Amino acid sequence: MIWLRVLRQVIFVLVYNTHERDIYFSRHSTMSSIIHSLQWLSLFFLFTSICVSSLKIPRFGTFHRRNHQQHQTIFSSQLSKDLKTFYYMQRLDHFNYRPDSYTTFPQKYIINFKHWGGAKSNAPIFAYFGPEQQIPDDIYVGLLEDNAPKFNALVVYIEHRYYGKSTPFGSFEESMKNATTRGYFNSAQAIADYADVLLHIKQNLSAQHSPIIIFGGSYGGMLTSWFRLKYPHIAVGALASSAPILYFDGIAPRHGYFYVVTKDFKDTSESCYNTIRKSWHVIDRIAKKPNGLSILSKRFKTCKKLSTSSNLKNYLASIYTGVAQYNDPRENTLKVICDAIDGAANKTDVLGQILEGVVAYDWEKQPCYEMEGNEEPDETDIGWAWQTCSEIVMPIGIDKDDSLFQPEPFNMKEYINYCQEQYGVLPQPHWITTYYGGPDLKLNLERFASNIIFSNGLIDPYSSAGVLNSISDSIIALTTKNGSHCLDLGPEDPRDPHWLITQRNTEMEIIKGWIDKYQADLRNSTK
Amino acid sequence: MIWLRVLRQVIFVLVYNTHERDIYFSRHSTMSSIIHSLQWLSLFFLFTSICVSSLKIPRFGTFHRRNHQQHQTIFSSQLSKDLKTFYYMQRLDHFNYRPDSYTTFPQKYIINFKHWGGAKSNAPIFAYFGPEQQIPDDIYVGLLEDNAPKFNALVVYIEHRYYGKSTPFGSFEESMKNATTRGYFNSAQAIADYADVLLHIKQNLSAQHSPIIIFGGSYGGMLTSWFRLKYPHIAVGALASSAPILYFDGIAPRHGYFYVVTKDFKDTSESCYNTIRKSWHVIDRIAKKPNGLSILSKRFKTCKKLSTSSNLKNYLASIYTGVAQYNDPRENTLKVICDAIDGAANKTDVLGQILEGVVAYDWEKQPCYEMEGNEEPDETDIGWAWQTCSEIVMPIGIDKDDSLFQPEPFNMKEYINYCQEQYGVLPQPHWITTYYGGPDLKLNLERFASNIIFSNGLIDPYSSAGVLNSISDSIIALTTKNGSHCLDLGPEDPRDPHWLITQRNTEMEIIKGWIDKYQADLRNSTK
Repeated sequence: MIWLRVLRQVIFVLVYNTHERDIYFSRHSTMSSIIHSLQWLSLFFLFTSICVSSLKIPRFGTFHRRNHQQHQTIFSSQLSKDLKTFYYMQRLDHFNYRPDSYTTFPQKYIINFKHWGGAKSNAPIFAYFGPEQQIPDDIYVGLLEDNAPKFNALVVYIEHRYYGKSTPFGSFEESMKNATTRGYFNSAQAIADYADVLLHIKQNLSAQHSPIIIFGGSYGGMLTSWFRLKYPHIAVGALASSAPILYFDGIAPRHGYFYVVTKDFKDTSESCYNTIRKSWHVIDRIAKKPNGLSILSKRFKTCKKLSTSSNLKNYLASIYTGVAQYNDPRENTLKVICDAIDGAANKTDVLGQILEGVVAYDWEKQPCYEMEGNEEPDETDIGWAWQTCSEIVMPIGIDKDDSLFQPEPFNMKEYINYCQEQYGVLPQPHWITTYYGGPDLKLNLERFASNIIFSNGLIDPYSSAGVLNSISDSIIALTTKNGSHCLDLGPEDPRDPHWLITQRNTEMEIIKGWIDKYQADLRNSTK
Repeated sequence: MIWLRVLRQVIFVLVYNTHERDIYFSRHSTMSSIIHSLQWLSLFFLFTSICVSSLKIPRFGTFHRRNHQQHQTIFSSQLSKDLKTFYYMQRLDHFNYRPDSYTTFPQKYIINFKHWGGAKSNAPIFAYFGPEQQIPDDIYVGLLEDNAPKFNALVVYIEHRYYGKSTPFGSFEESMKNATTRGYFNSAQAIADYADVLLHIKQNLSAQHSPIIIFGGSYGGMLTSWFRLKYPHIAVGALASSAPILYFDGIAPRHGYFYVVTKDFKDTSESCYNTIRKSWHVIDRIAKKPNGLSILSKRFKTCKKLSTSSNLKNYLASIYTGVAQYNDPRENTLKVICDAIDGAANKTDVLGQILEGVVAYDWEKQPCYEMEGNEEPDETDIGWAWQTCSEIVMPIGIDKDDSLFQPEPFNMKEYINYCQEQYGVLPQPHWITTYYGGPDLKLNLERFASNIIFSNGLIDPYSSAGVLNSISDSIIALTTKNGSHCLDLGPEDPRDPHWLITQRNTEMEIIKGWIDKYQADLRNSTK
């Protein structure tokens, strides 16, 4: 088992939590839980692709919160009375008429009524599509909440089936118990759920002609763009933030993700990039020595003695990919780490330099670093592992010679075998492109479809499979050179760089155009 | 049980048969089988909506073939060597990952390679979507076959799951055996099948950039328009002939179908319309007499004594609706019948007039008229009954006072109860509009979607739920004042009226425009 094999694909999405104001991270997003769940799940790759707050870099080892105590109080108390939680009795299987398809389960959704202009005003509905994560009771997604007052918009958050409280067979464990209960857990069912919930809300609020704008990031962004394609009669427009919809069936190159991470480091510092590249071989060489693991454990101040050098390499790789994906433009952690690595060049050896990078990254200096944890995987770990082993098959590998990482090409055959062994059913690597399209995207969509924004930060490794060029006047790609994963979905902050403010403003102006046009058409149609 | 209650909804679609050249009618389309299956199925309404040949009026009582012997030979021998039958191992359930979803079944499709320009030419593919009927081995759909040579097009016919040879669980009987086996029988699965088969054909023929144009009529037309909305990356454009996509969820008025039949008769002859209207009461009055059924049986020369006057009324109603739906513009059977009814006005009473209409309709004079048959329902009867009782819920009723028919409002509650009793599962009358849209069609699609032709003949009662006004420059409604159900799909004939020739030419010109534009875009995209 090569080290990368134990890594795992994860695409989380940001869920802002009012108690912390900045960003909600559930337990699974801590590095230790990820690292530890790897051993449990023994899946192939880890892409720590949690959509990140624009306020701070995610801390994988431990989750630090700094200087936001004040915000916490304010937002928590403000929002708690504005958010209402509901449950919709959702149909288990939208595409089948077997008696068991009719089973229903409670699907959670939350509404913020505070800014709502009411049904008669045909005021818009901003709907956030829950990704592979629960929707907490005090959810707060910045872009929607910051802009709802200007639009008199109703804000709706809908939880994705199988996550959080929206489990079809009682508990999450029961729902994931076997191949039969897991079968209904896929994106086509999930967006059909969203369709049902949104029509239900419209009917309940007598808001038939309130235009719905849908928002999502990462996997949630895939869902919004796919939803706009499949259900244009329900959502007038979609913002798909950092949605790697081209990472299927060979459209985007397999090495794209790690190519961007590599480029990020190279652009930050050529010598830093070279040091990291060198470090893998140094680790390998030392690990081969009789007391190699002891030496490495000591050098890297691991809390427990390393049982394999892979755990160290996973830990380091996760820092590099995480920092690339979530680089905070206000702190530029990429640079912080590379400065530390480069700055130690004349004082220590390669491993010493790497350790300086770890220390700089984990700025609240640890007495020791936790690389072999023992936390159980949580719902997102387990759920997303299933999703990527059945439907969301993204062949991400490391093929390029000049990669920051050691080569590890994606092997579809091995992947399929692994998934079949793990879950008892074959993954369907061609289904996403059959159902949603992907190849020849411009050719197919330039005169079909409209009102989708694909936003991508080019620092984000997932941008390698994003839509980076506009397809038409209304299928618009917005890219930011220094943006990272889902940055635009975050809340406004006084420290936001100008280009981020511009990006969000542009998005909301485009969305305003969609809404205005819809409402003008509506007036004409009812004349 | 009111008489209309025993009638049944059917939407067939034309399937040309090379042995008969004019039109293929499988056994189920004979009037006797329909009438007899009614008793067996005891469903609510009959709408004899088989897409009809442009060559002759369908004979329900018996199927007459006249003057086409020569054509038969020519077309049969020409085509038999050009058509090749294939089977694609189709996935049972596209939207589920339960182990049983992975079951495959052979789905039949037929290719006519004769005119195919080959993969390198990027020549188009004309695909005909099989409706609720088998695809016979010698299928011939006029519009596709007549135009394929001009486009160097590959012609593909794909059979709809559960019909013909494309049954998922062995035989049709096994496939329809119970609520579990029937569950996978719905339109979303069917169009996903078409997507899979079309991509498979493209891959097999290395025809990745051959634009696919899809054709279908009636229910098959619904499928093509829905497919273009859901799979725009697979089909470049769709012709949806006589597709009543608005007969769902209260969009089109419930009385629309019978309103158009009424209008057709009124427009043909006000006195004919009045006589038919009167006749129901006369029949009712006589039926109430002690020897009423004997009197009616004698007057209408029934082969067996009527067991109920409903059978007579069903028989007559089916003639009127059938003639309205399939009126052949070259023979104008509507006028033939009304002329016979009106012409007898001074010679006989109302029932005598009606009998003259029957005789004129069934022009090869029968020694007696078969109104109470005993044929078993066939696959289409049984399959379509299920489809309309689960997903394709079209609430068609007679509400208007001035109807040609006796009032019979549609009662959704009764319908739902009936279906649940019959099949053990609840129909989903809102699902079609949730999945495919429908309400506010123009508002939703005028800046989304493209390349769909909705063609309707306004004589056709199903035009009442068709798209009769263009939605945009490329979602085009084509109507013909004197056209009937699916007339445009039929083969060219020297007796075709000018407007029918024009309609077909216009359709193919529009389609040529789509293909040319696609190919120009393709050239630009690969430059």
